[in-house]
Amino acid sequence: MIVASVRTTVPSRSADGELVLVHPDRTTVARLPREHFSSLRNALDSWDTASARLHEINEMLRKGSWKATSSTSEVTFMAPLPRTWAFIDGSAFIQHVILVRKARGAELPEDLYTVPLMYQGASDNLLGPTDPIPLRLSSDGMDFESEVAVITDHVPMGCQAAEAEKHIRLVMLCNDVSLRELIPRELATGFGFFHGKPPSSFSPFALTPDELGGDWKEGRLHLPVTTALNGTVFGSPNAGEMHFSFPQLIAYAATTRPLSAGTIIGSGTVSNKDESVGSSCLAERRMLEKIHTGKSVTSFLKNGDRITISVMRDGVDLFGTINQRVQQV
Amino acid sequence: MIVASVRTTVPSRSADGELVLVHPDRTTVARLPREHFSSLRNALDSWDTASARLHEINEMLRKGSWKATSSTSEVTFMAPLPRTWAFIDGSAFIQHVILVRKARGAELPEDLYTVPLMYQGASDNLLGPTDPIPLRLSSDGMDFESEVAVITDHVPMGCQAAEAEKHIRLVMLCNDVSLRELIPRELATGFGFFHGKPPSSFSPFALTPDELGGDWKEGRLHLPVTTALNGTVFGSPNAGEMHFSFPQLIAYAATTRPLSAGTIIGSGTVSNKDESVGSSCLAERRMLEKIHTGKSVTSFLKNGDRITISVMRDGVDLFGTINQRVQQV
Repeated sequence: MIVASVRTTVPSRSADGELVLVHPDRTTVARLPREHFSSLRNALDSWDTASARLHEINEMLRKGSWKATSSTSEVTFMAPLPRTWAFIDGSAFIQHVILVRKARGAELPEDLYTVPLMYQGASDNLLGPTDPIPLRLSSDGMDFESEVAVITDHVPMGCQAAEAEKHIRLVMLCNDVSLRELIPRELATGFGFFHGKPPSSFSPFALTPDELGGDWKEGRLHLPVTTALNGTVFGSPNAGEMHFSFPQLIAYAATTRPLSAGTIIGSGTVSNKDESVGSSCLAERRMLEKIHTGKSVTSFLKNGDRITISVMRDGVDLFGTINQRVQQV
Repeated sequence: MIVASVRTTVPSRSADGELVLVHPDRTTVARLPREHFSSLRNALDSWDTASARLHEINEMLRKGSWKATSSTSEVTFMAPLPRTWAFIDGSAFIQHVILVRKARGAELPEDLYTVPLMYQGASDNLLGPTDPIPLRLSSDGMDFESEVAVITDHVPMGCQAAEAEKHIRLVMLCNDVSLRELIPRELATGFGFFHGKPPSSFSPFALTPDELGGDWKEGRLHLPVTTALNGTVFGSPNAGEMHFSFPQLIAYAATTRPLSAGTIIGSGTVSNKDESVGSSCLAERRMLEKIHTGKSVTSFLKNGDRITISVMRDGVDLFGTINQRVQQV
């Protein structure tokens, strides 16, 4: 099942968007009975009931007995959850941690392979897949970070990893926008990321794990995530190389708190040991350039740059494409 | 005007609570027309309209032409915002920063007096004023932190401090529960607070700044915040000693992101240079003991401990009292 949130003209609901079902062929979307589904965020509050009804409608849509209302090209997609209770971003690809720490001249944590790194990011004003990325100052060092993200239902405090898989309700892609020049100072205070992590962007479609079939296993997406910068492929590392699985990240996040239905958990920048597959952020490429040639030559994002992030499978653009332009504000 | 959120029996709305108006004498509460005010969080999405109507009803309540529906002792208060889009906690009392950094053996930031410290905390599953504080492990080193907090409306990115005061819509008290033994490791990774800051608790009442009269000036609450542990006053420092004002914290928070209506901004632990007024957290007292006697003797919170936080003015319990028991889970 594939769901999405589209921009609505009803002001009171516009901030959350309107939940729609996406046809399996991704060419059309179907509006839903309003009384049941005011938004994806609200539907997540009672997801068992909501998803059962959504699955029914999805079957009808597949068979043609539920009418699609728009072609996907006619609607403006928002982030599946434009605002929610928590966005907890992990950093579960070890190669990324190694390279960005090297770039910052920071030491590697001793427990790199046993304890996930995780911070709480902005979970509101999240950008839709085609929203421009607002650039404040070119000196901020703006970067993209291509990630996989999941949406959970309610997770009780103390939930173990073995129990956490069932709390994963939807899977999507994320562009975790980062302001590299602001981060070293923030991390030095000990208080962690804040200004350096403005609101992230998300793919148009959120998929139930069963839509991913065998490509979702052991709590990871086993497919390459392809990032292109100004039309040229920048990297295509496989997200299956994630060191900590999503269930492990969820369980770790729930150590001293419950997680609300609608919590987004991010994988961290997708990164592989095999350098030939390219990178999912500029910081990694800059570090690799420095290692191999002594000098970083790739510059950070500037006004007008275009970034796309997608996962293709058998010619199908699985999550829809994040396709954003950097826009000076 | 004083508002509060009370527990409701309507399941779909229970997580957000039901918005009520509190009579100026704080003895009764008045329910509101449901069609307009489904919750405080929803009301904040269009606060200009909502607060105008609330002010009208408040006047009627004051004059007796709007009927109070319950005595305050009959309802269960939740946090004014039990779940919201962001809880951004500052650390704006310099004396607190100095003492807790000393306790952790951490260096003081060079820009201590010019750049606020700030992190993003959990903004969901927030505890009501009389909810027990769940204690996972006594070795977590549980502490309270008495703070002042404000709720903002929408703040645009780049808002300046001079413009930020008008975005402060409500004022309340906060108990920022901290797990001291988990914090040093988290801050050492650079990723900042996460497990060490489980969901905070809030006072029953949220007040519009005009309710505070002359005690709200220059973006600060100029009254002592009194904390008691197991019935004995622990500290009563004045919140007016806040180094960075709330408008400064709001402007700083909005540097690279807009803030949504319903954002909570915390002051950090209220702390004064004058040690004779006592402390608002155990960590400070433990550090003062160490400085003066060479040894910390006060222990962290244990099962059954009771903590109260309140602000009294002319015999009136302004925000209602946070009154919580620590409960082993």
